[in-house]
Amino acid sequence: MELMNARGTRDFPPEEKIVRQSITDMLRRVFELYGFSPLETPILERMEVLSAKYAGGAEILKETFRFQDQGEREIGLRYDLTVPMSRFVGMNPTLKMPFKRYQIEKVFRDGPIKAGRMREFWQCDVDIVGSASMMADAQCIQIAQKVFQELGLDVNLEFNSRKILDGILRQSGVPESKITDAILEVDKLKKIGVDEVRKNIEKLGIDDDAITKSLGLFSANGSNDEKIKNLKVFLRDNEALDGIREVEEILQYVDGKNVMFNPALARGLSYYTGPVFEAVMKDESIFSSSLAGGGRYDKMIGNFLGSAKEYPAVGISFGLEPITTVMTKLGKMDQSRKTVTQVYVVPIQTAKECIKIAEELRAAGINTDLDLNGRGVSKNLDYADKMGIQYALIVGEDELKKGKYNLKDMKTGKEESLSIDGICKKLR
Amino acid sequence: MELMNARGTRDFPPEEKIVRQSITDMLRRVFELYGFSPLETPILERMEVLSAKYAGGAEILKETFRFQDQGEREIGLRYDLTVPMSRFVGMNPTLKMPFKRYQIEKVFRDGPIKAGRMREFWQCDVDIVGSASMMADAQCIQIAQKVFQELGLDVNLEFNSRKILDGILRQSGVPESKITDAILEVDKLKKIGVDEVRKNIEKLGIDDDAITKSLGLFSANGSNDEKIKNLKVFLRDNEALDGIREVEEILQYVDGKNVMFNPALARGLSYYTGPVFEAVMKDESIFSSSLAGGGRYDKMIGNFLGSAKEYPAVGISFGLEPITTVMTKLGKMDQSRKTVTQVYVVPIQTAKECIKIAEELRAAGINTDLDLNGRGVSKNLDYADKMGIQYALIVGEDELKKGKYNLKDMKTGKEESLSIDGICKKLR
Repeated sequence: MELMNARGTRDFPPEEKIVRQSITDMLRRVFELYGFSPLETPILERMEVLSAKYAGGAEILKETFRFQDQGEREIGLRYDLTVPMSRFVGMNPTLKMPFKRYQIEKVFRDGPIKAGRMREFWQCDVDIVGSASMMADAQCIQIAQKVFQELGLDVNLEFNSRKILDGILRQSGVPESKITDAILEVDKLKKIGVDEVRKNIEKLGIDDDAITKSLGLFSANGSNDEKIKNLKVFLRDNEALDGIREVEEILQYVDGKNVMFNPALARGLSYYTGPVFEAVMKDESIFSSSLAGGGRYDKMIGNFLGSAKEYPAVGISFGLEPITTVMTKLGKMDQSRKTVTQVYVVPIQTAKECIKIAEELRAAGINTDLDLNGRGVSKNLDYADKMGIQYALIVGEDELKKGKYNLKDMKTGKEESLSIDGICKKLR
Repeated sequence: MELMNARGTRDFPPEEKIVRQSITDMLRRVFELYGFSPLETPILERMEVLSAKYAGGAEILKETFRFQDQGEREIGLRYDLTVPMSRFVGMNPTLKMPFKRYQIEKVFRDGPIKAGRMREFWQCDVDIVGSASMMADAQCIQIAQKVFQELGLDVNLEFNSRKILDGILRQSGVPESKITDAILEVDKLKKIGVDEVRKNIEKLGIDDDAITKSLGLFSANGSNDEKIKNLKVFLRDNEALDGIREVEEILQYVDGKNVMFNPALARGLSYYTGPVFEAVMKDESIFSSSLAGGGRYDKMIGNFLGSAKEYPAVGISFGLEPITTVMTKLGKMDQSRKTVTQVYVVPIQTAKECIKIAEELRAAGINTDLDLNGRGVSKNLDYADKMGIQYALIVGEDELKKGKYNLKDMKTGKEESLSIDGICKKLR
């Protein structure tokens, strides 16, 4: 047997998992602060659900792991958390609205392995189903602000309404049938620049005047207020003006410090119907892809469920992989701790008593480990050091008699003689 | 499309997931108190690994979901967390020993759906690799004691050494070739009683005298000390005596209050080489299967890796499904909360200001939600009530002017007029 991970998967050893877990713990804490509650849906889903119309679509189905169970039913591994949530909403018609849920779970895509792209990865999603209010969209932006503040990452939260995008193109004279394709090109503005985008749009057979008009509007400069003011002068399309109202309302609700209205922001094509948003590093030379993204999708759930009932919805998804990539680049992923242990107890012929001491420290809430292999003091201190444990507690017969123990700070080398109570007070 | 879960899977709505998450949070906290650190391994594993000799074995392979990836590589969904951990240990030869890890993750089995048996379920495992000391086994028992104390479940922690089991049978005259089959029958003692077990063992062609001798030894009564004393009188087999020494050493290390030596305990067959343990309800009429179980498996990892190096190991696994089943039966799973929200803010024409108030409460660490749908006060209070939110905060123009708000306890109906600071102090 060859010892290998399946392609596109990897292990996260403790030194990495500890940091990743601290990030997902923080996400969960922030999601809960904003009134989102946990939902768990299975990794296994029926292919009938995953491949339903208005679910993920053809592109994503090509990348769906699928197989049969023992009863020859067609099963797939979920490729996102939105389709399973929509299924859940459909199966629970008595759910109180708005339904606000978070899921921090794994999804699977059998795609090509590019740098950083895994076949099994975490998605960290919040969604609000059952509210058409821009207060809901604002909440998604607030959550992103809080999350990146907690991470200490300097991001811009760019946002837009898809209605503005559609409206600008329509009003500029782009025929309805070509709006979708044109949006795909506009989406590349930041990546490939205005000249390349112009060329690509020309290839779609859209006339020069329409291109010039729309590109002019998309590249509006200045503060959020200035951009809105400028657009208002030119925009006449009703849908676009409705989008402007959405943008203005959201700006009323959020602290605008790092929120940037960007009328060219498209967030792919998929199912967005109103506001869209994404978080990108202010310094894009560090990382240029988005770290989080989302938007409003008022039609998708109803369409997916084939329901006459409408399910207005908005959500945002945080990418654990891009976030950890950026944190690593910035030296913010401290991987020196291979263990969560705070104190490592080193017995000198006092194993039995040390088990009791360890239990006392644990009862006080201190993560405590002790030598299990009867090693000598220096080997034990070396182990504590290599594992990144902050304190060692050396316990010989003398210490037991005195009821005072030497707590050694592994970084500074300093030792302090303390009672168990004293240690608990110091470390708690 | 039919809205259904894949067979053998289910959703956990917030009211259930909140409680389940509080259990896994507690498990994690206890595991970390004992110096175990998180490891994450993928759900996708190469079939070559899952089907390797000394891995899960034929029975479990029949229940393994398997398929090919786009590169036509054979992939399976892991059926446990021990095989992936063993692979990880093999792939990381510089790992410091002992390696103490926990994993609270999902595993998959494509088996028949019996009551409570799911095809996708959580395993909550701790394992210590690289220590042959009984202190490690004692730690697993201590963890179980702490976990069930935290859960408020009255369990017995039964334990034994497989060496005693083997030794009793051998010494009683059961031929070496039949020991494995005989253990399978002894394992059923509690379930089907001594008479049935005797009949079954007779069918194996083991002579009457051997059966009588061994069944006598297995059914030793009394305290742990009395059982040990009794067995010591009769046992002459060296392996069995070694097992007795293991049992005695463990009893030196643990608080014996709910630890019960049971010389008939086998814990299935698989790969155990020394101590085995399981947690069962003291009142088995509530639930008769085990809630946690584990043991020492000194040979499995080395054999699996085809390594000359030895990897003594011991671990214990907690079953989230049986634990939640028991908790539900005992009325300890409070599912009245459909949300983690602590305070629900109800604006009366004050939405914009309420967003700010909500942000202040969140900054103080209070899980806060607010009306997103512009509903009237009574509809909002009804929503808060149905969701199981404890407090509603009603905010009109008057309240804003005074800077004092009515905090309504949804259970008692009592209202208190408080400043934001006052609310934070009360709820924190």
